[in-house]
Amino acid sequence: MTERVLTGITTTGTPHLGNYVGAIRPAIEASRAPGVESFFFLADYHALIKCDDPDRIERSRLELAATWLAAGLDPQRVYFFRQSDLPETPELTWLLTCVTAKGQMNRAHAYKAATDANEAAGEDIDAGITMGLYSYPILMAADILLFNAHRVPVGRDQVQHIEMARDIAQRFNHLFGKGHELFVLPQAEIDEELATLPGLDGRKMSKSYDNTIPLFEGGARALKDAIARIVTDSRLPGEPKDPDSSHLVTIHDAFATMEQRAAFRADLRAGLAWGEAKERLVRLIESHIGPMRERYADLMAHPERIEDTLQEGARKARKIAGPFLAQLRQAVGLRPMTALPKAAGTAQGEAHKQALPVFKQYREADGRFYFKLTATDGTVLLQSSGFAEGREAGVWVKRLKTEGAAALGAAPVELPAGVDRTTVDAALAALMAAQE
Amino acid sequence: MTERVLTGITTTGTPHLGNYVGAIRPAIEASRAPGVESFFFLADYHALIKCDDPDRIERSRLELAATWLAAGLDPQRVYFFRQSDLPETPELTWLLTCVTAKGQMNRAHAYKAATDANEAAGEDIDAGITMGLYSYPILMAADILLFNAHRVPVGRDQVQHIEMARDIAQRFNHLFGKGHELFVLPQAEIDEELATLPGLDGRKMSKSYDNTIPLFEGGARALKDAIARIVTDSRLPGEPKDPDSSHLVTIHDAFATMEQRAAFRADLRAGLAWGEAKERLVRLIESHIGPMRERYADLMAHPERIEDTLQEGARKARKIAGPFLAQLRQAVGLRPMTALPKAAGTAQGEAHKQALPVFKQYREADGRFYFKLTATDGTVLLQSSGFAEGREAGVWVKRLKTEGAAALGAAPVELPAGVDRTTVDAALAALMAAQE
Repeated sequence: MTERVLTGITTTGTPHLGNYVGAIRPAIEASRAPGVESFFFLADYHALIKCDDPDRIERSRLELAATWLAAGLDPQRVYFFRQSDLPETPELTWLLTCVTAKGQMNRAHAYKAATDANEAAGEDIDAGITMGLYSYPILMAADILLFNAHRVPVGRDQVQHIEMARDIAQRFNHLFGKGHELFVLPQAEIDEELATLPGLDGRKMSKSYDNTIPLFEGGARALKDAIARIVTDSRLPGEPKDPDSSHLVTIHDAFATMEQRAAFRADLRAGLAWGEAKERLVRLIESHIGPMRERYADLMAHPERIEDTLQEGARKARKIAGPFLAQLRQAVGLRPMTALPKAAGTAQGEAHKQALPVFKQYREADGRFYFKLTATDGTVLLQSSGFAEGREAGVWVKRLKTEGAAALGAAPVELPAGVDRTTVDAALAALMAAQE
Repeated sequence: MTERVLTGITTTGTPHLGNYVGAIRPAIEASRAPGVESFFFLADYHALIKCDDPDRIERSRLELAATWLAAGLDPQRVYFFRQSDLPETPELTWLLTCVTAKGQMNRAHAYKAATDANEAAGEDIDAGITMGLYSYPILMAADILLFNAHRVPVGRDQVQHIEMARDIAQRFNHLFGKGHELFVLPQAEIDEELATLPGLDGRKMSKSYDNTIPLFEGGARALKDAIARIVTDSRLPGEPKDPDSSHLVTIHDAFATMEQRAAFRADLRAGLAWGEAKERLVRLIESHIGPMRERYADLMAHPERIEDTLQEGARKARKIAGPFLAQLRQAVGLRPMTALPKAAGTAQGEAHKQALPVFKQYREADGRFYFKLTATDGTVLLQSSGFAEGREAGVWVKRLKTEGAAALGAAPVELPAGVDRTTVDAALAALMAAQE
């Protein structure tokens, strides 16, 4: 079975070399594994929680999209989109909001940290806390559950949010699933061995330590300048050096082959000067990052191409999200008014049987088997392609009747010109409802 | 100036005669006033908060839509739609969530009542409280602000929610409005004289008192049976009766002309039997409700017609909501990547000037003045109709440049075949951004 893996990319801040080695590169590599369907999204709705500077949101979205694409994320292979291009996400957020216990949000670490700080300062516990910060785990649950992701790679601080998503999913399944699971329960995936790159001073590379090496910012020049500032011991050229006590070597390792690593170590032990070692490190990193930086520059000069890529990604993602949300709406009772609800005790007493759309199976002169879906007014809503066996057509009709719009993506059918998707979804939903 | 009035219709429960007289009829009458643009919506996202019975949600939506249409709401004249048909609503809800102070939600009456009850019962204060109940005022703010409604007719218990909507709107304007007001601050409108119809026993007609007269449910027969059960005093036929101490007369007044009222009073004073008085009341109410009940029955037998009406209503409403949300997205920084953000300090130093879509004004052989909007790749995105004066074309170009998609609804322009609205909105947004 294909496993779905979902990765959210937060959209504030410019990525540095540590982000590349610790997050971007491994995620892109993982997306190339067989049997995996990867979803990457720019979490710009999340970014709004912490940032009320619109220009910064805009700039950051652009830089991050360009960074991931330049680093090799293949939008043909993965789903790559902006969170805010899927109206299904905020809608699902509301459906989940209605089943989420408030007590659960009270226990969220991020919220508790904020209230603890307020209490320590003698303030009202909710001082300065927005509803965005407070209800953010529900939005995150919607991101994950909308695609029924099996695995979500996260840092330790996010594990609780995945657990909350599981709880919310379970409650929703229980209330509305009628025995079948609407939502997959997602698993947090923490890579314990995840490389964290040391910064200039040997501590973890992080903006808060001001010890970062830029990824693309400032070009080759800035990369070289930063590497020149990596702290080393004071051994002179010619003196043997201990490679394993130098974080310069750790940074080198992150880009080197096994052979390059061995050679670098041997040379340092033989007395290679730190200055020369840094030059080699610059060349090594530049050989990886240089071509990406060119792609990055090209992308940044053509934001409209990134826009196209993201819009195409949103279209692909919505092909999954749209029919699934239609199914969820059906489950909670937000249903098209095509079939009369069974229990409707109206002034007319028992409700009329409502006419339903009809699937028709037939054989054409070409000897192949076909089916079509016809609305109550005779309009053809779906037209299948031809099957060698009548049985195959039957299987698809059955799937469409029982799974509704969710089966539409895979089904070998076309919507005739002028028929819109909403009408088809509604017709399928009516058939599903009638089966129950 | 046209005033916008927004009315939310909650979608649980079957309406009774008191709902008709106290809410439905006056709202429909108000929607016919000149200078008013009325928005009516079935608040089905709200209904999900309190109801996890999907069939009940479904049935209730249908009954309420049929009731309002049967009672005379004119979907040609007003905006009549389902809340859940506007993806703009949950999206705006999230944008507002990010600027809403949690402390404000803590003070909401409905939430406080629930926590008080928990405290009294010795429970955890948030026991059994969902995030839907807690954050519902934000959804309500989104309903109102999405259409920049000036007035919201509400009961006293809802006034606080309108005040919250004002606060949220003010904060959003302050953070993202850059001097111009994105949101109108809505006014609560409480009709102090709002007729509340007495029930069978003389107390306010209410399901909780079990004293209701049905509106359509059960047909003419049920109406008659209920009226027979109206409590009166024990004066016999022929004895003079005091009309002003009888709630039967109050119910009569709600449907009677001035002349009918006077005649009814005179006859009671002259000794009209209660039994006969009730028969007259049945005839009077039936003369109003009977024709509506027929329309109601007809609508309930054809839910697909209601569906069409609501979908058409949603299309109309989204013509306003869609471009306005595009403007709000622009304001918070969720912008199409067509123009490079000004402050983008990239590896290439100062960003290239991004090519922008262009408005062109010209005169045709017919002597009239035209304009069109052309994308950077030469595609025509908008084509105006002809103007007698060049100046008129200029005024429209200026409005489209400064107001963006928000001006599109009124502008005398067409989208050429194959051009989708999103592309046009993005182009206009890019032009707006470039002006700032």
